[in-house]
Amino acid sequence: MKNYQITEWCHHFWREQIRPGDLCIDATMGNGKDTQVLCELTGKGGKVLAFDIQECALQATRERLRRAGVPENYELYCRSHVHMDEYAKEGSVSCIVFNLGYLPGGDHSKATRAESSIEAIEQGLRLLKKGGLMSLCIYSGGDSGYEEKDGVLAYLRTLDSQRYLVICSEYYNRPNHPPIPVLIVRL
Amino acid sequence: MKNYQITEWCHHFWREQIRPGDLCIDATMGNGKDTQVLCELTGKGGKVLAFDIQECALQATRERLRRAGVPENYELYCRSHVHMDEYAKEGSVSCIVFNLGYLPGGDHSKATRAESSIEAIEQGLRLLKKGGLMSLCIYSGGDSGYEEKDGVLAYLRTLDSQRYLVICSEYYNRPNHPPIPVLIVRL
Repeated sequence: MKNYQITEWCHHFWREQIRPGDLCIDATMGNGKDTQVLCELTGKGGKVLAFDIQECALQATRERLRRAGVPENYELYCRSHVHMDEYAKEGSVSCIVFNLGYLPGGDHSKATRAESSIEAIEQGLRLLKKGGLMSLCIYSGGDSGYEEKDGVLAYLRTLDSQRYLVICSEYYNRPNHPPIPVLIVRL
Repeated sequence: MKNYQITEWCHHFWREQIRPGDLCIDATMGNGKDTQVLCELTGKGGKVLAFDIQECALQATRERLRRAGVPENYELYCRSHVHMDEYAKEGSVSCIVFNLGYLPGGDHSKATRAESSIEAIEQGLRLLKKGGLMSLCIYSGGDSGYEEKDGVLAYLRTLDSQRYLVICSEYYNRPNHPPIPVLIVRL
């Protein structure tokens, strides 16, 4: 089997989930790597909404998407993901992805925080259609600390198991606080 | 996405791993459900070795495989899985599956135990070929208790991360000690 490190692990499930024409959200645009994958998977007839509070993230992403030649099916917003419910209807989104932690190569003081991340996840869960997927990569340790990870994980424990399937995975024998991928399926 | 409960979750990765002609091992035959899937995936040119210490497990499995009409590519052994290295060469096996806990519907005093499970897992890891997959479903709570789960998980933490990828997944919002699926890839 593949050596599924966190990126390949998440992409594996995105590919299983996303169909051409789908509406997807990148809640934490960062340098746009994930946005690019979502644009490719949703295709010309699909749509990707991507959010970040840092203008440099939008610039990097715009440049990346142009170079990659992905379909022009994306809208990039310099706003916090806690406003994403202004841009999509409840029950309409196929896949929503979050990277929790700081922007690689960016300003580490601009990390996501537990309180607003949980608010955005709650909103995102309402936007997901039935069978829709939310994927979280939770980075912790180092500059990110543990507060956000602990807060988000405690919140996920409280989700109604009749309405959401929540699978948290752990790279069990890796040192140095490896990231935690979480899959949430709206049932 | 699918409502991946533990069985579908494990099968998803078996299907990704196993190719016709492969050699596979069901280390805990039980009622033969997993053996059947392995027989179907490996096909006529493949081989499945299945182990259980209870004769009733072999009878149930033999009957199940006959009814299902799977290829006659299996060998059922009434021996403990700690002897499986007598039946396959090091580095030859594509996929090895374990269910840890008791045989559903069987004698609950005949549950697997941490010490022998760890011995069998160690053996199995040596039998796996590069890129091979070991899949564990760890049942705990109720009659199974927690000792085996805790012992096996502590052992998995110690595996060399350069040689083995270990991903433990948790049904994070399910009550009543849901089973824990573990994927181990030999790198």
